[in-house]
Amino acid sequence: MMQPAATALGLRLRVLAEGPDVAAAQVITPAPIGAADDLEALVAFATECDAVTFDHEHVPGPGLRAMAEVTSVQPGADALVHAQDKIVMREKLTDLGIPCPRWARVVDRAAVEAFGSWPVVLKTPRGGYDGKGVLVLDGPDDAKWGTADAWLADWADRGGLLAEEHVPFTRELAALVARSPSGQAAAWPIVETVQRDGVCHEVTAPAPEVSDDLAAQLTDIALRIAGGLDVTGVLAVEVFEVLRDGVRTVVVNELAMRPHNSGHWSIDGSVTSQFENHLRAVLDLPLGSTQARAPWTVMVNVLGPQEIETRHEDLYRSYLHVMAHDPGVKVHLYGKEQRPGRKLGHVTVYGDDLDTVRERARHAAAFIAGEIDE
Amino acid sequence: MMQPAATALGLRLRVLAEGPDVAAAQVITPAPIGAADDLEALVAFATECDAVTFDHEHVPGPGLRAMAEVTSVQPGADALVHAQDKIVMREKLTDLGIPCPRWARVVDRAAVEAFGSWPVVLKTPRGGYDGKGVLVLDGPDDAKWGTADAWLADWADRGGLLAEEHVPFTRELAALVARSPSGQAAAWPIVETVQRDGVCHEVTAPAPEVSDDLAAQLTDIALRIAGGLDVTGVLAVEVFEVLRDGVRTVVVNELAMRPHNSGHWSIDGSVTSQFENHLRAVLDLPLGSTQARAPWTVMVNVLGPQEIETRHEDLYRSYLHVMAHDPGVKVHLYGKEQRPGRKLGHVTVYGDDLDTVRERARHAAAFIAGEIDE
Repeated sequence: MMQPAATALGLRLRVLAEGPDVAAAQVITPAPIGAADDLEALVAFATECDAVTFDHEHVPGPGLRAMAEVTSVQPGADALVHAQDKIVMREKLTDLGIPCPRWARVVDRAAVEAFGSWPVVLKTPRGGYDGKGVLVLDGPDDAKWGTADAWLADWADRGGLLAEEHVPFTRELAALVARSPSGQAAAWPIVETVQRDGVCHEVTAPAPEVSDDLAAQLTDIALRIAGGLDVTGVLAVEVFEVLRDGVRTVVVNELAMRPHNSGHWSIDGSVTSQFENHLRAVLDLPLGSTQARAPWTVMVNVLGPQEIETRHEDLYRSYLHVMAHDPGVKVHLYGKEQRPGRKLGHVTVYGDDLDTVRERARHAAAFIAGEIDE
Repeated sequence: MMQPAATALGLRLRVLAEGPDVAAAQVITPAPIGAADDLEALVAFATECDAVTFDHEHVPGPGLRAMAEVTSVQPGADALVHAQDKIVMREKLTDLGIPCPRWARVVDRAAVEAFGSWPVVLKTPRGGYDGKGVLVLDGPDDAKWGTADAWLADWADRGGLLAEEHVPFTRELAALVARSPSGQAAAWPIVETVQRDGVCHEVTAPAPEVSDDLAAQLTDIALRIAGGLDVTGVLAVEVFEVLRDGVRTVVVNELAMRPHNSGHWSIDGSVTSQFENHLRAVLDLPLGSTQARAPWTVMVNVLGPQEIETRHEDLYRSYLHVMAHDPGVKVHLYGKEQRPGRKLGHVTVYGDDLDTVRERARHAAAFIAGEIDE
């Protein structure tokens, strides 16, 4: 999704692909092959680039630092570590005075039980993604303790796990900002995100019923994080909205330092997409307007169907029907093979009436995914 | 510019490139090399494709027919000939009752002088592009008769030249439509185009001060041409607006059977761009909404500067300034080397006030092209 923006800006992309079949390698050339932890491949690749950036956060620090010896790496290793390690992130956000769930580093079962309130959310500091590496324990007798004990043993000599209070949130919101090395920053409207099985599923921009105060508070949090962590490129701050004494406020859940699913709406819904501003930011070009283009924009992910029987063998046929049904829907497919629950693409619809826009987007995504048949 | 739309739709493009340095080959892979008249290269290429389409009209008929033996070729040879040969086009449009300038086929000087009214516009039937292959003769003593005589001699045994009356137009408009093999058609709003030295320079969508009647008349003409010529994909119909007895009407100037410069505004200005609908049309997918997204959209081409002294050696530096000056401008660069008058890219601006939108777009294009310095 970075490529259309790069093409328009006249920038040449190259991608370091994990294998010849990855989606990005199908549409970007050249696409040399190399793993994210292959130091030699990383440096050889970086040598050919004016700047290097990422579509995931899992390039280890040594690789980032080695690439930074030969070219501009954005975001840098010192920023990226906060998106790679959830304990490092919590320590830093707490230092910056950013509202977080109550949290602690836990190295054994006793520490988890001493955390003080159930349920406890247990997270592996590294390697988690889309709900993986997260365990909710309801109490000392929870059946999931088997997994928890294994995780604790596994992480004991690597600093332990992250324990967090289970935040009783009213809904989830996200703030998306872009920041350049010279410090220019731009913030998109606050969005509402709906997760399904730990995976972002639906995004509404702007988030309905967010007061100006709350929007300003959340935007300020995202900009303070971007500045405080020296983030370059796009930063997504996922938060829980909570009611405290009748007032809506937020606590930070997760960070992503890259164009993020919560910002896909911006491709069709904003003057400048998150992908374009990410490229502009990492190259230290002036940032584009983050204004929304329509009163309401709704993005819904197309997830690989769970049941083989309901699967449309041929996405092409099903999006043909969606296109015929609604000429205004914007379909984005990623060229990935179907697997249950996998993000295969997304659809975006925009317009003046939220209910209509949301219904159209949900219908299109569900139809392409084979969840409905009419 | 076809590639971003293809990527979103999950379609894989391949391009048959005239050489390794052409702009399309820089961003599309695979890009085998082959000339538009190399029958063997065309067929080898077509064999690997589900459908073949074009970004220019200059593939000769035998190549088109050979490709059509192995795959779907859209538009087909029988349609494309009307965009390749201006005399064939005039004959067909006249048959269809489409308003054209008065015209005649001329094989010698006597025929031109007998055409009856000066000035006479002389056109080579084939190979013309962006004002090339067009000669305006003011009378029997015009200094350009030397060229005209050479053209007449050159085309004498190929059916002669096209002579047309010089239409005293008030301005130029264009109608853009997409049509699929199954006959579905969609029309974008009528636009006003401004030429500079025979090259499309500025496009305003919708065309200001076009009555509903005139818009309907022009859209109807474009749809009748698309149907009558069995055009598939995008068709651009460039027309002259003329005042007849105080009433504005139109006569058809040129046809283009591909995404056209007069439709570049649709990338940022319409729900579905001409490139997306071209792909949808040639694959016989349902067409997308052609609605404008803003009250006014203005596109201005970035042309290579005439004077070397005013040239910005580095487009990158100049668009950096444009981005800083106006975060809402959409810059599109084509990755082409600078040459005087060459289309290097375009900029698009949209908004509520036409004067402001036009001024912003003109400023951005002029700055990138090095015509102004502030």
